[in-house]
Amino acid sequence: MKISTRNKLEGTISAVNNGPVSTEITIDLAGGDKLIAVVTSESARSLGLTKGKKAVGLIKAPLVALLTDAGGYKFSARNQLTGVVTKVNKGAVNSEVSLRLKGGSEVYAIVTNEAVTELNLAANTPATALIKASHVIVGVQ
Amino acid sequence: MKISTRNKLEGTISAVNNGPVSTEITIDLAGGDKLIAVVTSESARSLGLTKGKKAVGLIKAPLVALLTDAGGYKFSARNQLTGVVTKVNKGAVNSEVSLRLKGGSEVYAIVTNEAVTELNLAANTPATALIKASHVIVGVQ
Amino acid sequence: MKISTRNKLEGTISAVNNGPVSTEITIDLAGGDKLIAVVTSESARSLGLTKGKKAVGLIKAPLVALLTDAGGYKFSARNQLTGVVTKVNKGAVNSEVSLRLKGGSEVYAIVTNEAVTELNLAANTPATALIKASHVIVGVQ
Repeated sequence: MKISTRNKLEGTISAVNNGPVSTEITIDLAGGDKLIAVVTSESARSLGLTKGKKAVGLIKAPLVALLTDAGGYKFSARNQLTGVVTKVNKGAVNSEVSLRLKGGSEVYAIVTNEAVTELNLAANTPATALIKASHVIVGVQ
Repeated sequence: MKISTRNKLEGTISAVNNGPVSTEITIDLAGGDKLIAVVTSESARSLGLTKGKKAVGLIKAPLVALLTDAGGYKFSARNQLTGVVTKVNKGAVNSEVSLRLKGGSEVYAIVTNEAVTELNLAANTPATALIKASHVIVGVQ
Repeated sequence: MKISTRNKLEGTISAVNNGPVSTEITIDLAGGDKLIAVVTSESARSLGLTKGKKAVGLIKAPLVALLTDAGGYKFSARNQLTGVVTKVNKGAVNSEVSLRLKGGSEVYAIVTNEAVTELNLAANTPATALIKASHVIVGVQ
Protein backbone atom coordinates (compact mmCIF):
# COMPACT_ATOMS: atom_id res chain seq x y z
CA MET A 1 0.00 0.00 0.00
CA LYS A 2 1.39 3.41 -0.98
CA ILE A 3 -0.64 6.11 0.74
CA SER A 4 0.29 9.59 1.98
CA THR A 5 -1.26 9.24 5.46
CA ARG A 6 1.64 9.12 7.93
CA ASN A 7 -0.29 6.98 10.40
CA LYS A 8 -0.96 3.36 9.46
CA LEU A 9 -2.05 1.45 12.56
CA GLU A 10 -2.62 -2.27 12.01
CA GLY A 11 -4.87 -4.54 14.04
CA THR A 12 -8.02 -6.63 14.18
CA ILE A 13 -11.63 -5.39 14.29
CA SER A 14 -13.04 -6.26 17.74
CA ALA A 15 -16.37 -4.37 17.68
CA VAL A 16 -18.82 -2.84 15.16
CA ASN A 17 -21.58 -0.47 16.35
CA ASN A 18 -24.01 0.35 13.52
CA GLY A 19 -26.10 3.53 13.29
CA PRO A 20 -28.33 4.74 10.44
CA VAL A 21 -25.65 7.00 8.86
CA SER A 22 -22.49 6.33 10.89
CA THR A 23 -20.87 3.13 12.18
CA GLU A 24 -18.25 2.92 14.91
CA ILE A 25 -15.45 0.37 14.43
CA THR A 26 -12.96 -0.72 17.12
CA ILE A 27 -9.56 -1.98 15.94
CA ASP A 28 -7.38 -3.78 18.51
CA LEU A 29 -3.78 -2.76 17.85
CA ALA A 30 -0.64 -4.69 18.75
CA GLY A 31 0.40 -4.00 22.35
CA GLY A 32 -3.11 -3.63 23.74
CA ASP A 33 -4.04 -0.19 22.35
CA LYS A 34 -7.42 0.24 20.69
CA LEU A 35 -8.26 2.51 17.75
CA ILE A 36 -11.86 3.67 17.27
CA ALA A 37 -13.02 4.82 13.83
CA VAL A 38 -16.35 6.29 12.73
CA VAL A 39 -17.11 5.57 9.08
CA THR A 40 -20.31 5.91 7.07
CA SER A 41 -22.57 2.87 7.48
CA GLU A 42 -22.52 2.49 3.70
CA SER A 43 -18.71 2.07 3.84
CA ALA A 44 -18.96 -0.42 6.71
CA ARG A 45 -21.39 -2.50 4.60
CA SER A 46 -19.53 -2.29 1.30
CA LEU A 47 -16.14 -3.15 2.89
CA GLY A 48 -17.65 -5.94 5.00
CA LEU A 49 -16.23 -4.50 8.24
CA THR A 50 -16.95 -7.28 10.72
CA LYS A 51 -15.50 -8.55 13.98
CA GLY A 52 -12.31 -10.57 13.55
CA LYS A 53 -11.27 -8.99 10.26
CA LYS A 54 -7.72 -7.59 9.97
CA ALA A 55 -7.78 -3.82 9.35
CA VAL A 56 -5.52 -0.79 9.17
CA GLY A 57 -6.45 2.61 10.60
CA LEU A 58 -5.12 5.48 8.49
CA ILE A 59 -4.88 8.98 9.96
CA LYS A 60 -3.36 12.10 8.42
CA ALA A 61 -0.72 13.64 10.71
CA PRO A 62 -2.34 17.14 10.83
CA LEU A 63 -5.41 15.51 12.45
CA VAL A 64 -3.44 14.25 15.46
CA ALA A 65 -3.33 16.50 18.58
CA LEU A 66 -0.73 16.02 21.30
CA LEU A 67 -1.34 16.34 25.04
CA THR A 68 1.34 16.37 27.72
CA ASP A 69 -0.73 17.53 30.71
CA ALA A 70 -4.52 17.06 30.94
CA GLY A 71 -4.73 19.48 33.90
CA GLY A 72 -7.72 17.61 35.31
CA TYR A 73 -9.58 17.62 31.98
CA LYS A 74 -11.14 14.64 30.22
CA PHE A 75 -11.57 14.79 26.44
CA SER A 76 -14.20 13.54 23.99
CA ALA A 77 -11.61 12.28 21.48
CA ARG A 78 -12.21 8.51 21.45
CA ASN A 79 -8.56 7.78 20.75
CA GLN A 80 -6.08 8.78 23.42
CA LEU A 81 -2.89 6.88 22.73
CA THR A 82 0.00 7.33 25.13
CA GLY A 83 3.65 7.02 24.17
CA VAL A 84 7.03 8.71 24.13
CA VAL A 85 8.24 11.31 21.60
CA THR A 86 10.97 9.86 19.38
CA LYS A 87 11.64 12.78 17.02
CA VAL A 88 10.67 16.40 16.30
CA ASN A 89 11.18 17.57 12.70
CA LYS A 90 10.81 21.38 12.70
CA GLY A 91 9.51 23.38 9.72
CA ALA A 92 8.81 27.10 9.26
CA VAL A 93 5.34 27.07 10.88
CA ASN A 94 4.68 23.41 11.73
CA SER A 95 6.66 20.50 13.13
CA GLU A 96 6.20 16.78 12.57
CA VAL A 97 6.39 14.91 15.88
CA SER A 98 6.82 11.11 16.09
CA LEU A 99 5.51 9.20 19.08
CA ARG A 100 6.18 5.52 19.91
CA LEU A 101 3.20 3.85 21.59
CA LYS A 102 3.61 1.26 24.33
CA GLY A 103 2.59 -1.47 21.89
CA GLY A 104 5.37 -0.36 19.52
CA SER A 105 3.29 1.45 16.87
CA GLU A 106 4.55 4.82 15.65
CA VAL A 107 2.14 7.79 15.62
CA TYR A 108 2.89 11.00 13.70
CA ALA A 109 1.41 14.42 14.49
CA ILE A 110 1.85 17.74 12.73
CA VAL A 111 1.55 20.54 15.28
CA THR A 112 2.51 24.22 15.23
CA ASN A 113 5.98 25.27 16.39
CA GLU A 114 4.32 27.22 19.24
CA ALA A 115 2.85 23.95 20.49
CA VAL A 116 6.29 22.28 20.38
CA THR A 117 7.62 25.07 22.61
CA GLU A 118 4.62 25.24 24.97
CA LEU A 119 4.52 21.47 25.48
CA ASN A 120 8.34 21.10 25.56
CA LEU A 121 8.09 18.39 22.93
CA ALA A 122 11.46 16.70 22.45
CA ALA A 123 12.82 13.15 22.22
CA ASN A 124 11.86 11.09 25.30
CA THR A 125 8.96 13.40 26.37
CA PRO A 126 5.88 11.31 27.32
CA ALA A 127 2.82 12.49 25.36
CA THR A 128 -0.69 11.39 24.45
CA ALA A 129 -2.00 11.51 20.89
CA LEU A 130 -5.67 12.56 20.68
CA ILE A 131 -7.43 11.41 17.51
CA LYS A 132 -11.13 11.87 16.81
CA ALA A 133 -12.81 8.64 15.68
CA SER A 134 -14.23 10.53 12.67
CA HIS A 135 -10.68 11.21 11.43
CA VAL A 136 -9.72 7.58 10.96
CA ILE A 137 -9.94 5.92 7.51
CA VAL A 138 -10.29 2.14 7.75
CA GLY A 139 -8.55 -0.12 5.21
CA VAL A 140 -9.13 -3.87 4.76
CA GLN A 141 -7.85 -6.43 2.28
CA MET B 1 -3.89 21.77 30.32
CA LYS B 2 -1.02 21.44 27.86
CA ILE B 3 -2.37 20.44 24.47
CA SER B 4 -1.15 21.15 20.93
CA THR B 5 -4.53 22.26 19.53
CA ARG B 6 -4.22 26.02 18.87
CA ASN B 7 -7.92 26.62 19.48
CA LYS B 8 -9.22 26.32 23.04
CA LEU B 9 -12.68 27.90 23.25
CA GLU B 10 -14.19 27.92 26.74
CA GLY B 11 -17.87 28.05 27.62
CA THR B 12 -20.87 26.24 29.04
CA ILE B 13 -22.82 23.36 27.47
CA SER B 14 -26.29 24.68 26.55
CA ALA B 15 -27.70 21.74 24.53
CA VAL B 16 -27.09 18.01 24.00
CA ASN B 17 -28.72 16.20 21.04
CA ASN B 18 -28.19 12.42 21.27
CA GLY B 19 -28.16 10.03 18.31
CA PRO B 20 -27.32 6.31 18.25
CA VAL B 21 -23.64 6.80 17.24
CA SER B 22 -23.12 10.59 17.29
CA THR B 23 -24.17 13.30 19.75
CA GLU B 24 -24.27 17.02 19.05
CA ILE B 25 -23.12 19.35 21.84
CA THR B 26 -23.63 23.14 21.90
CA ILE B 27 -21.13 25.20 23.95
CA ASP B 28 -22.06 28.83 24.66
CA LEU B 29 -18.86 30.88 24.45
CA ALA B 30 -18.14 34.19 26.13
CA GLY B 31 -19.48 37.09 24.06
CA GLY B 32 -22.53 35.27 22.70
CA ASP B 33 -20.87 32.96 20.16
CA LYS B 34 -21.86 29.31 20.11
CA LEU B 35 -19.63 26.33 19.29
CA ILE B 36 -21.25 23.10 18.07
CA ALA B 37 -19.37 19.80 18.44
CA VAL B 38 -20.26 16.32 17.23
CA VAL B 39 -18.74 13.59 19.39
CA THR B 40 -19.43 9.87 19.60
CA SER B 41 -22.41 9.12 21.87
CA GLU B 42 -20.13 6.84 23.89
CA SER B 43 -17.86 9.86 24.65
CA ALA B 44 -20.85 12.03 25.57
CA ARG B 45 -21.94 9.35 28.06
CA SER B 46 -18.54 8.60 29.55
CA LEU B 47 -17.64 12.31 29.99
CA GLY B 48 -21.10 13.13 31.37
CA LEU B 49 -21.66 15.90 28.82
CA THR B 50 -24.83 17.55 30.12
CA LYS B 51 -26.45 20.98 29.96
CA GLY B 52 -24.88 23.51 32.33
CA LYS B 53 -21.46 21.86 32.48
CA LYS B 54 -18.38 24.01 31.77
CA ALA B 55 -16.51 22.76 28.70
CA VAL B 56 -13.71 23.66 26.34
CA GLY B 57 -13.86 23.13 22.57
CA LEU B 58 -10.50 22.15 21.10
CA ILE B 59 -9.88 22.51 17.36
CA LYS B 60 -6.64 21.98 15.45
CA ALA B 61 -5.74 25.05 13.36
CA PRO B 62 -5.48 23.15 10.01
CA LEU B 63 -9.18 22.26 10.40
CA VAL B 64 -10.32 25.89 10.41
CA ALA B 65 -11.33 27.47 7.06
CA LEU B 66 -11.53 31.22 6.58
CA LEU B 67 -14.18 33.06 4.58
CA THR B 68 -14.10 36.74 3.66
CA ASP B 69 -16.92 36.84 1.08
CA ALA B 70 -19.75 34.29 0.97
CA GLY B 71 -20.80 35.47 -2.51
CA GLY B 72 -24.42 34.56 -1.80
CA TYR B 73 -23.52 31.07 -0.56
CA LYS B 74 -24.63 29.43 2.70
CA PHE B 75 -22.45 26.68 4.17
CA SER B 76 -23.11 23.45 6.06
CA ALA B 77 -20.32 24.06 8.59
CA ARG B 78 -22.20 24.42 11.88
CA ASN B 79 -19.64 26.84 13.26
CA GLN B 80 -19.32 30.18 11.48
CA LEU B 81 -17.52 32.51 13.84
CA THR B 82 -16.96 36.08 12.71
CA GLY B 83 -14.06 38.25 13.83
CA VAL B 84 -11.13 40.36 12.72
CA VAL B 85 -7.68 39.10 11.67
CA THR B 86 -5.05 40.05 14.25
CA LYS B 87 -1.95 38.41 12.77
CA VAL B 88 -0.67 36.44 9.76
CA ASN B 89 2.41 34.27 10.36
CA LYS B 90 3.70 33.17 6.93
CA GLY B 91 5.54 29.89 6.33
CA ALA B 92 6.87 28.27 3.13
CA VAL B 93 3.54 26.72 2.04
CA ASN B 94 1.09 27.57 4.84
CA SER B 95 0.34 30.55 7.05
CA GLU B 96 -1.10 30.67 10.55
CA VAL B 97 -3.83 33.32 10.78
CA SER B 98 -5.20 34.60 14.12
CA LEU B 99 -8.73 35.94 14.34
CA ARG B 100 -10.28 37.76 17.31
CA LEU B 101 -14.00 36.98 17.72
CA LYS B 102 -16.51 39.59 18.87
CA GLY B 103 -16.70 37.90 22.26
CA GLY B 104 -12.93 38.20 22.63
CA SER B 105 -11.90 34.58 21.97
CA GLU B 106 -8.94 34.01 19.65
CA VAL B 107 -9.32 31.55 16.73
CA TYR B 108 -6.32 30.21 14.80
CA ALA B 109 -6.43 28.86 11.24
CA ILE B 110 -3.70 27.33 9.13
CA VAL B 111 -4.39 28.11 5.48
CA THR B 112 -2.26 28.00 2.34
CA ASN B 113 -0.28 31.07 1.30
CA GLU B 114 -2.39 31.23 -1.89
CA ALA B 115 -5.48 31.64 0.30
CA VAL B 116 -3.79 34.48 2.23
CA THR B 117 -3.23 36.28 -1.08
CA GLU B 118 -6.64 35.53 -2.63
CA LEU B 119 -8.55 36.59 0.50
CA ASN B 120 -6.22 39.56 1.21
CA LEU B 121 -5.80 38.31 4.78
CA ALA B 122 -3.94 40.87 6.89
CA ALA B 123 -4.33 42.52 10.29
CA ASN B 124 -7.76 44.17 10.63
CA THR B 125 -9.41 42.20 7.79
CA PRO B 126 -12.86 40.97 8.87
CA ALA B 127 -13.18 37.20 8.34
CA THR B 128 -15.37 34.25 9.32
CA ALA B 129 -13.92 31.00 10.64
CA LEU B 130 -15.78 27.91 9.35
CA ILE B 131 -15.37 24.85 11.58
CA LYS B 132 -17.19 21.55 11.05
CA ALA B 133 -18.86 20.30 14.23
CA SER B 134 -17.13 16.94 13.73
CA HIS B 135 -13.71 18.64 14.06
CA VAL B 136 -14.25 19.85 17.63
CA ILE B 137 -12.88 17.85 20.60
CA VAL B 138 -14.78 18.58 23.82
CA GLY B 139 -12.92 18.77 27.15
CA VAL B 140 -14.51 18.86 30.61
CA GLN B 141 -13.10 18.78 34.13
CA MET C 1 -17.07 33.32 -2.87
CA LYS C 2 -13.72 33.98 -1.17
CA ILE C 3 -12.85 31.04 1.07
CA SER C 4 -9.52 29.56 2.13
CA THR C 5 -10.40 25.92 1.36
CA ARG C 6 -8.28 24.90 -1.65
CA ASN C 7 -10.87 22.42 -2.87
CA LYS C 8 -14.10 23.77 -4.33
CA LEU C 9 -15.89 21.00 -6.22
CA GLU C 10 -19.10 22.07 -7.96
CA GLY C 11 -22.03 19.88 -8.87
CA THR C 12 -25.65 18.94 -8.24
CA ILE C 13 -27.09 17.13 -5.22
CA SER C 14 -28.27 13.68 -6.40
CA ALA C 15 -29.09 12.00 -3.05
CA VAL C 16 -29.86 12.92 0.57
CA ASN C 17 -29.77 10.23 3.30
CA ASN C 18 -31.07 11.60 6.63
CA GLY C 19 -30.13 10.27 10.08
CA PRO C 20 -31.01 11.65 13.52
CA VAL C 21 -27.75 13.65 13.94
CA SER C 22 -25.93 13.24 10.60
CA THR C 23 -27.10 13.43 6.99
CA GLU C 24 -25.24 12.10 3.97
CA ILE C 25 -25.31 14.21 0.80
CA THR C 26 -24.18 13.06 -2.66
CA ILE C 27 -23.00 15.74 -5.11
CA ASP C 28 -22.61 14.73 -8.75
CA LEU C 29 -19.55 16.52 -10.13
CA ALA C 30 -18.81 17.40 -13.73
CA GLY C 31 -17.21 14.47 -15.54
CA GLY C 32 -19.10 11.74 -13.69
CA ASP C 33 -17.31 11.84 -10.32
CA LYS C 34 -19.40 11.87 -7.15
CA LEU C 35 -18.60 13.67 -3.89
CA ILE C 36 -20.18 12.40 -0.66
CA ALA C 37 -20.49 14.75 2.32
CA VAL C 38 -21.72 14.08 5.86
CA VAL C 39 -23.18 17.18 7.51
CA THR C 40 -25.27 17.61 10.64
CA SER C 41 -28.97 16.99 9.99
CA GLU C 42 -29.64 20.46 11.38
CA SER C 43 -27.44 21.97 8.61
CA ALA C 44 -29.12 19.86 5.94
CA ARG C 45 -32.51 21.20 7.09
CA SER C 46 -31.50 24.85 7.49
CA LEU C 47 -29.71 24.97 4.11
CA GLY C 48 -32.53 23.10 2.37
CA LEU C 49 -30.18 20.48 0.95
CA THR C 50 -32.43 18.59 -1.47
CA LYS C 51 -32.02 16.53 -4.62
CA GLY C 52 -31.48 18.66 -7.73
CA LYS C 53 -29.99 21.66 -5.95
CA LYS C 54 -26.65 23.03 -7.19
CA ALA C 55 -23.96 22.73 -4.49
CA VAL C 56 -20.24 23.12 -3.93
CA GLY C 57 -18.17 20.73 -1.82
CA LEU C 58 -15.39 22.50 0.09
CA ILE C 59 -12.47 20.53 1.49
CA LYS C 60 -9.33 21.81 3.19
CA ALA C 61 -6.17 20.50 1.47
CA PRO C 62 -4.64 18.97 4.67
CA LEU C 63 -7.69 16.66 4.87
CA VAL C 64 -6.98 15.03 1.49
CA ALA C 65 -4.89 11.83 1.46
CA LEU C 66 -3.21 10.54 -1.69
CA LEU C 67 -2.95 6.92 -2.75
CA THR C 68 -0.84 5.58 -5.61
CA ASP C 69 -1.01 1.84 -4.89
CA ALA C 70 -3.83 0.23 -2.89
CA GLY C 71 -1.84 -3.02 -2.52
CA GLY C 72 -5.05 -5.07 -2.44
CA TYR C 73 -6.65 -2.85 0.24
CA LYS C 74 -10.11 -1.25 0.13
CA PHE C 75 -10.70 1.91 2.17
CA SER C 76 -13.63 3.32 4.13
CA ALA C 77 -13.15 6.87 2.78
CA ARG C 78 -16.36 7.47 0.79
CA ASN C 79 -14.57 9.72 -1.68
CA GLN C 80 -11.89 8.11 -3.81
CA LEU C 81 -11.26 10.42 -6.74
CA THR C 82 -8.74 9.34 -9.34
CA GLY C 83 -6.67 11.73 -11.42
CA VAL C 84 -3.20 12.75 -12.49
CA VAL C 85 -0.76 14.92 -10.51
CA THR C 86 -0.28 18.29 -12.19
CA LYS C 87 2.06 20.02 -9.71
CA VAL C 88 4.03 19.49 -6.50
CA ASN C 89 4.82 22.64 -4.48
CA LYS C 90 7.41 21.66 -1.83
CA GLY C 91 7.70 23.36 1.57
CA ALA C 92 9.95 22.66 4.58
CA VAL C 93 7.81 19.84 6.05
CA ASN C 94 4.76 19.61 3.77
CA SER C 95 4.05 19.80 0.06
CA GLU C 96 0.94 20.91 -1.76
CA VAL C 97 0.05 18.46 -4.53
CA SER C 98 -2.45 19.29 -7.30
CA LEU C 99 -4.39 16.51 -9.00
CA ARG C 100 -6.59 16.84 -12.11
CA LEU C 101 -9.61 14.51 -12.02
CA LYS C 102 -10.95 12.80 -15.12
CA GLY C 103 -13.92 15.18 -15.15
CA GLY C 104 -11.54 18.16 -15.16
CA SER C 105 -11.88 19.30 -11.53
CA GLU C 106 -8.68 20.15 -9.66
CA VAL C 107 -8.07 18.55 -6.21
CA TYR C 108 -5.40 19.86 -3.81
CA ALA C 109 -3.76 17.81 -1.06
CA ILE C 110 -1.21 18.82 1.54
CA VAL C 111 0.97 15.83 2.37
CA THR C 112 4.33 15.45 4.11
CA ASN C 113 7.52 15.57 2.06
CA GLU C 114 8.22 11.96 3.10
CA ALA C 115 4.95 10.97 1.41
CA VAL C 116 5.98 12.81 -1.79
CA THR C 117 9.18 10.75 -1.86
CA GLU C 118 7.60 7.41 -0.89
CA LEU C 119 4.79 7.74 -3.43
CA ASN C 120 7.05 9.28 -6.13
CA LEU C 121 4.55 12.10 -6.54
CA ALA C 122 5.47 14.26 -9.53
CA ALA C 123 3.71 15.78 -12.54
CA ASN C 124 1.88 13.09 -14.58
CA THR C 125 1.82 10.49 -11.75
CA PRO C 126 -1.65 8.87 -11.53
CA ALA C 127 -3.02 9.14 -7.97
CA THR C 128 -6.26 8.78 -6.04
CA ALA C 129 -7.45 11.40 -3.55
CA LEU C 130 -9.10 9.86 -0.47
CA ILE C 131 -11.47 12.25 1.33
CA LYS C 132 -13.66 11.30 4.30
CA ALA C 133 -17.29 12.36 3.81
CA SER C 134 -17.17 14.05 7.22
CA HIS C 135 -14.45 16.42 5.95
CA VAL C 136 -16.59 18.03 3.24
CA ILE C 137 -18.36 21.36 3.86
CA VAL C 138 -21.37 21.84 1.56
CA GLY C 139 -22.18 25.29 0.16
CA VAL C 140 -25.41 26.26 -1.64
CA GLN C 141 -26.74 29.55 -2.98
